[in-house]
This record gives sequence, C-alpha cells and structure tokens, in this order.
Amino acid sequence: MRNLRKLRVMTPPDADGVPPRRRGRPPSGGREAIVAATLCLLRERGASRLTTREVAARAGTAEGTVFYHFGDRTGLLMAVINDGLRAFADVHFGQPDPGSDIGTLLDRFTSALEGFLDIAVVAMIAAQSDAELRDGMAQYFLARNVGPHRGVELLGGALRRAQSAGLVRTDIDAEALAMMVIGSCFLRVALQQMIGSDYSAKFPDRAELVRTVTTMLAPVGR
Amino acid sequence: MRNLRKLRVMTPPDADGVPPRRRGRPPSGGREAIVAATLCLLRERGASRLTTREVAARAGTAEGTVFYHFGDRTGLLMAVINDGLRAFADVHFGQPDPGSDIGTLLDRFTSALEGFLDIAVVAMIAAQSDAELRDGMAQYFLARNVGPHRGVELLGGALRRAQSAGLVRTDIDAEALAMMVIGSCFLRVALQQMIGSDYSAKFPDRAELVRTVTTMLAPVGR
Repeated sequence: MRNLRKLRVMTPPDADGVPPRRRGRPPSGGREAIVAATLCLLRERGASRLTTREVAARAGTAEGTVFYHFGDRTGLLMAVINDGLRAFADVHFGQPDPGSDIGTLLDRFTSALEGFLDIAVVAMIAAQSDAELRDGMAQYFLARNVGPHRGVELLGGALRRAQSAGLVRTDIDAEALAMMVIGSCFLRVALQQMIGSDYSAKFPDRAELVRTVTTMLAPVGR
Repeated sequence: MRNLRKLRVMTPPDADGVPPRRRGRPPSGGREAIVAATLCLLRERGASRLTTREVAARAGTAEGTVFYHFGDRTGLLMAVINDGLRAFADVHFGQPDPGSDIGTLLDRFTSALEGFLDIAVVAMIAAQSDAELRDGMAQYFLARNVGPHRGVELLGGALRRAQSAGLVRTDIDAEALAMMVIGSCFLRVALQQMIGSDYSAKFPDRAELVRTVTTMLAPVGR
C-alpha cells in the first residue's frame, strides 16, 4: 500500500497514554501483513479473543513489531478502519456538474461505502466486546472528529453541489438524505455480518435504493 | 407485563438443542426482573461477561429460575429483544387513510422504532462478542423469520397503503424507502451505543429526517 507514513500519523500510538516501545532499531516491516491478519482474526472470532501474540503469529512476525507499529490493540483496530477508509477515499465519485448523472454518483458512492463498511463495521462491532477497546475507539472517533458523520458530510456536500447545479430538487435537506443513504448501507452490512448474507438478502438491494433516491431527487415543479 | 404466555412461545427454550430443566415445581416468578437485569448488565459491560449466575444475582432470584424461563444465554438475549419488540408493536402508527398525515405516521414510527432499537441493538451487538451467542441469534432470526426486515415490511406496507390512498407519490419503491428510514434510525442508535450520545448528536436529528422524507413523498405532477 502507498503512503504508509501518512497513515501512521492517523493511528493512535498512545491511545492508552502509554507510549509504544520504540527503543533500538525498528523491527523489520510487516505492517500490512499485521493489519490483514488482524482483520482476518476479527472476522473469524471477534475482538474479545484478539491478542497481539496471535496477530503476530498469523502475520508471521514478532509481537514487538505489532507494538512498534500500532502501540496496542486499539491502535490495531483503528489501523484496520483507516486502511479501509483510505481505499474508500481514493474512489472518485464524480463531480455533480450539469453534465453528470446523480444516479451514477450514488451508485459509485454506495458501492465504495459498502466495501469500506464491510471492513469498518467488523472492527467497530468487535471493539464493543471489550471495555478497553470500546473506550479507545470512542476517544479516537471523538478526538479526531472521524466516523460515519464524515460520510454524511461528504455525500451531503455532493448533494448540495448537485442542488446548486440544478441537478436535484432544492427543497430537501441534503444531510438528512445523505444519512438515510448511509444508514441503509450500514444496516445491510451490519446485518450481513451479524446474521449472514442469507439474511441481508431479505432487504431491497443497493440498485433499488439508488433508483429510489434518484427518483425522489428529480427536480419537481418546473 | 401482559401476555407472558405468548412471549414464552417466542423465546428459544432449546436453542442449543438441550431442553431446559423443567423437573419438579417451576421456580417462583421473577421473569421480568431477569429480563431487566440482563439488559442492565448488557448495557454495563456487553455480553462477553454475561453469566446466568450474575443475572440471577442482579435479579434477586435463583440461577435455576433463569434456566427455567430462558434455557440459556441466547434465550435471555432473545427475550430482551422480544420484550422491546412487544412495546414497539403496541404502538398504533395510524392508518394511512385520506384523512391522515404521512408526517405523523413517520414521526410515530421512527420514535417507537428508536426506542425499540435502543434495546435490541444492545442485545444484537452484545451477541457478537461470543461465538455461541452469535450463532444462536443468527439461527433464531433465520428460523423464525424475525429481524429488521420485518420493520421494512411493516413500514413498506404502510407506505404502499398511503400510495393507494393517493397520500404519497406512487413512482417510488416503498420498501426501499422504508429501508432508508429504518437504516438511518439504526445508524443513529448503533453509534449512540458504540461511541456515545455526544457523537450521535453530529447527525441530522429525527425531526429533520421525518421532514425530508415527508417532502420527498409528496405527490408530484398532479
């Protein structure tokens, strides 16, 4: 993955107030393998049995390397979320200019969002199994002003630009609609993880949601 | 609470295939106190440390009474959800007839839904901390065809009746819109529980959502 230095800044090396061990030479590489191993273990059995020792073993590296890169288990979980977020942020949703199509923008946005949530919701739910992880995640989200409300701001902003461009009706609250779009993606992904894909198939699919929103957003009264 | 016999039928006395102990005389009462104690313990520290012994202690009853009423921990969690669901189902959302107001229906529905989710999401997230509880909940939801998709069917049906009555536009998918409404309530409640109410205040509030949906649903092109 690119731009590792930038990502390191986003992880909480001292979420519990204890600085990570950084004496001597840094242990050799393995950062990406550690994040992948963490996500894998979370999917298999949640966070309540997530240990840095097992993450290290799965990643084929030393436990000291895990501490070096991530500080603690909260740092590991936040790194899982941040790696997913970076892939989401790289998607170009299209500018809502007069030549563009709001349905295409919504399709790209919800597709990328569900891909990201498929990673982030695992980590968020897993963190709930452990008081230290739960508090660490809450502090991280609040102190850095990150979390799903940023997605609402992102999509809400795009919808407001589309309103200014005359592409969509102007008599609705863009943030409220953005929250509904993100909420339905969150509901689908959360239930897929909690109950399984057999269950989440009982809901309207993403294409139906995009079609419905696009219809409701069409300018009226012109 | 009313109608306990009916509720008992909805709990899984043998979710793990082992019938609960029912020899001799049933232990005396305490069912409601046990459900309340379970919800209380779940809110305090999740399910990973939920034991029937502590539930019994908190409820001021014997552990055998817990087994008698609920069978196992999965039965306890599902009883927490079912008790919340019953309160939700008791709310009269109003019939969408020509004299009624779709905004009032949406306000009543989302208010009652968030109250229910405030209980159900605790139990659903808590169940994720433990493989036995997670599998038990998934089996329960799938075998009994319960879960949030029933809410989508309920609200979707009300919206379709409102479409038939000419109260709302007919060119949108009622179930897709219902999923968006329920998804945004689910997102708000889940984040309130995961991160806290300071965080969930960053989202558009319920009144803004109801207003936005009501505006988008107004009949067009007449």
